Amino acid sequence: MLNFDISEYQVRLNKTKEVMIQKGLDVLIVTDPANMNYISGYDGWSFYVHQGLIIFLDKDQPVWFGREQDSNGARITTWLDDENIIGYQDHYVQSQTIHPYDFVADLIKKYQHDRKNIGVEKDNYYFTAQSFEHLKKNLPNAVIKDGGLIINWVRAIKSPKELEYMKMAGQILEKVMKTAVDMIEPGVREGDAAAEVYKTMIAGTRNFTGDYSAIIPIMPSGRRTTTAHLSWTDRRYKKDEIILLELSGCKNRYHAPLSRTIITGKPSKELDTIAKTVIHGLNKVVDFIKPGIMAQDIEAKWREAISGSRVVKESRIGYAFGLNYPPDWGEHTISLRPGDTTIIKPGMTIHVMPGIWTDTLGFECSEAIYITDKGCETFSKVSRQLFVK
Amino acid sequence: MLNFDISEYQVRLNKTKEVMIQKGLDVLIVTDPANMNYISGYDGWSFYVHQGLIIFLDKDQPVWFGREQDSNGARITTWLDDENIIGYQDHYVQSQTIHPYDFVADLIKKYQHDRKNIGVEKDNYYFTAQSFEHLKKNLPNAVIKDGGLIINWVRAIKSPKELEYMKMAGQILEKVMKTAVDMIEPGVREGDAAAEVYKTMIAGTRNFTGDYSAIIPIMPSGRRTTTAHLSWTDRRYKKDEIILLELSGCKNRYHAPLSRTIITGKPSKELDTIAKTVIHGLNKVVDFIKPGIMAQDIEAKWREAISGSRVVKESRIGYAFGLNYPPDWGEHTISLRPGDTTIIKPGMTIHVMPGIWTDTLGFECSEAIYITDKGCETFSKVSRQLFVK
Repeated sequence: MLNFDISEYQVRLNKTKEVMIQKGLDVLIVTDPANMNYISGYDGWSFYVHQGLIIFLDKDQPVWFGREQDSNGARITTWLDDENIIGYQDHYVQSQTIHPYDFVADLIKKYQHDRKNIGVEKDNYYFTAQSFEHLKKNLPNAVIKDGGLIINWVRAIKSPKELEYMKMAGQILEKVMKTAVDMIEPGVREGDAAAEVYKTMIAGTRNFTGDYSAIIPIMPSGRRTTTAHLSWTDRRYKKDEIILLELSGCKNRYHAPLSRTIITGKPSKELDTIAKTVIHGLNKVVDFIKPGIMAQDIEAKWREAISGSRVVKESRIGYAFGLNYPPDWGEHTISLRPGDTTIIKPGMTIHVMPGIWTDTLGFECSEAIYITDKGCETFSKVSRQLFVK
Repeated sequence: MLNFDISEYQVRLNKTKEVMIQKGLDVLIVTDPANMNYISGYDGWSFYVHQGLIIFLDKDQPVWFGREQDSNGARITTWLDDENIIGYQDHYVQSQTIHPYDFVADLIKKYQHDRKNIGVEKDNYYFTAQSFEHLKKNLPNAVIKDGGLIINWVRAIKSPKELEYMKMAGQILEKVMKTAVDMIEPGVREGDAAAEVYKTMIAGTRNFTGDYSAIIPIMPSGRRTTTAHLSWTDRRYKKDEIILLELSGCKNRYHAPLSRTIITGKPSKELDTIAKTVIHGLNKVVDFIKPGIMAQDIEAKWREAISGSRVVKESRIGYAFGLNYPPDWGEHTISLRPGDTTIIKPGMTIHVMPGIWTDTLGFECSEAIYITDKGCETFSKVSRQLFVK
């Protein structure tokens, strides 16, 4: 059932432990579901209750903890021995008197690591302020430090097998994007277009089906294109309307995202100018990306390419992505913006996404790429254009 | 664009303020996306970055804060005046040097509430340990208390308009469940069945389309039915296999969930016995539920109904649900289990979900109900049976 050889999981665990040593951590509590999957294989929609992996520097396998009714899920989807899969009883769930991190603290005591240096993922969605308080209260002799993003940074460089899954996601994505462009016409219900997009995303190809993506299909129209994260509504597309598409394919939790824009009619002069400028900038950036440069150099190339135009882009123009769960396919590591001095290396995967949202309209045209030895390649082949319907 | 009259949002805000007064809070920072929607109408897939509402006891409208590129989303989807929609600059996003809660603290200072009693939703997914640390550090003169679940409890009793949306979700759900039962056959790819389920969920009915649900379609088969939260894979259904279905319809972010079970072939004696026992227990419970009893009474009725059988159910048998965003449609308030003394009232909405997961198989048959003046009604009419295909 595993998506990778056990040896690949072990390489990941060892890389993580190397960073733990550098940071002086004896223990790391992993709550990010993508990090849990990356280290153990664990894959289930159970992150709505408290769960995690505990990595002990001196232990060969991490310990999975979660709700008892999810523990068979860990037995099925991970490479961990049964003794390292530990469920807590149901009365810990959403209780006003006890908290799952009381249980976690007891576990750490049981393993006699309650006087050690413990890392936690402090800014992860699934490590709440309450979790932290209960952990600190129950482990007064531990030194609890921020161990956030340790595994995210290990994830930044993908293995050949990971890239293979992302290329499969890219194949699905091509079909998803075609479905959206084909479906969207004046008179069609937005929800019916979104329904076909979902169907294509999950049905995948003749050779493999797809998985749910970490972000829903973002496909707003009209005024709703003036902002980044709205989607379809219960209405019909009209003529002369802009529709943004930020869509993805997903395979084995690995994503391939992409943005394109549709106009149902004739583009305004403003839209036409923005589209040409952004596509020119995107082309320049994709041609430029190669190992050895810094993340901020990519953004500088973008700014140089669009200089002299009236396009203004205040936000970052891209970010690392890959394996993930809702609410984000981004990895929260590399950002293409001034000040990010990350050296670009082969195997990194970046969504170059210079989305434009003004007070009157939006335009999106992006590329998801992986870094090769000499440059970069896209995960899908979709024409870089404003689609006129 | 609002799903409710402004007066309904204001009633909700006033109820929240009443509880804030009881709890001695001058300010409440709301990060739960469902709570944000409930109070302001805000609806966007932007909860992957830090965002929230700040409710000031002495201010008529809450203040929305979030990423600048999402602020037009707040202008479009909320009833708030422009002066109460405040975006932070993009360099706050996923930065290693500054944090959005530095910005939030500055906002609270600007409103001169930095020496007041401030509530935060301590165990919400979107209020991280890091958020809490930055808030505390930047507001040394504030008293910061747990204000978690205040709005969740206000949400527990639905208005007529909310129930109307949930009934629409129930109509979608009936079609979704039929699609799943029709599609699942030996030889069909699991992903193709899931694809049709998604399509039906979003396409909705002739009169209205649907929304994405807060939990993906949970539809595991075979051994994967021994646990609660696995779903489809890249394989084909076989003969004599159990398939669990925990599916939903969603309209305007309001859900109607339901569980059923399929067997592709002849049920084993064990499965048949479990199915009869659970359906008997569920029937008894649904007949029993009425205003005035306590949540724990419902669980006791279940235990009484199945006593003498060999079915063991250690976990809670249901929970409140309604308006929500990923990762959960549950409201984290009422749980049907011993010790929950919540008085059941008209307008409450509960998913009675006595899922059974043994080490060899799973069985699910549930009902989503709303409490009426005299008893309860289901949101959908789907036969309570083991579906034999």
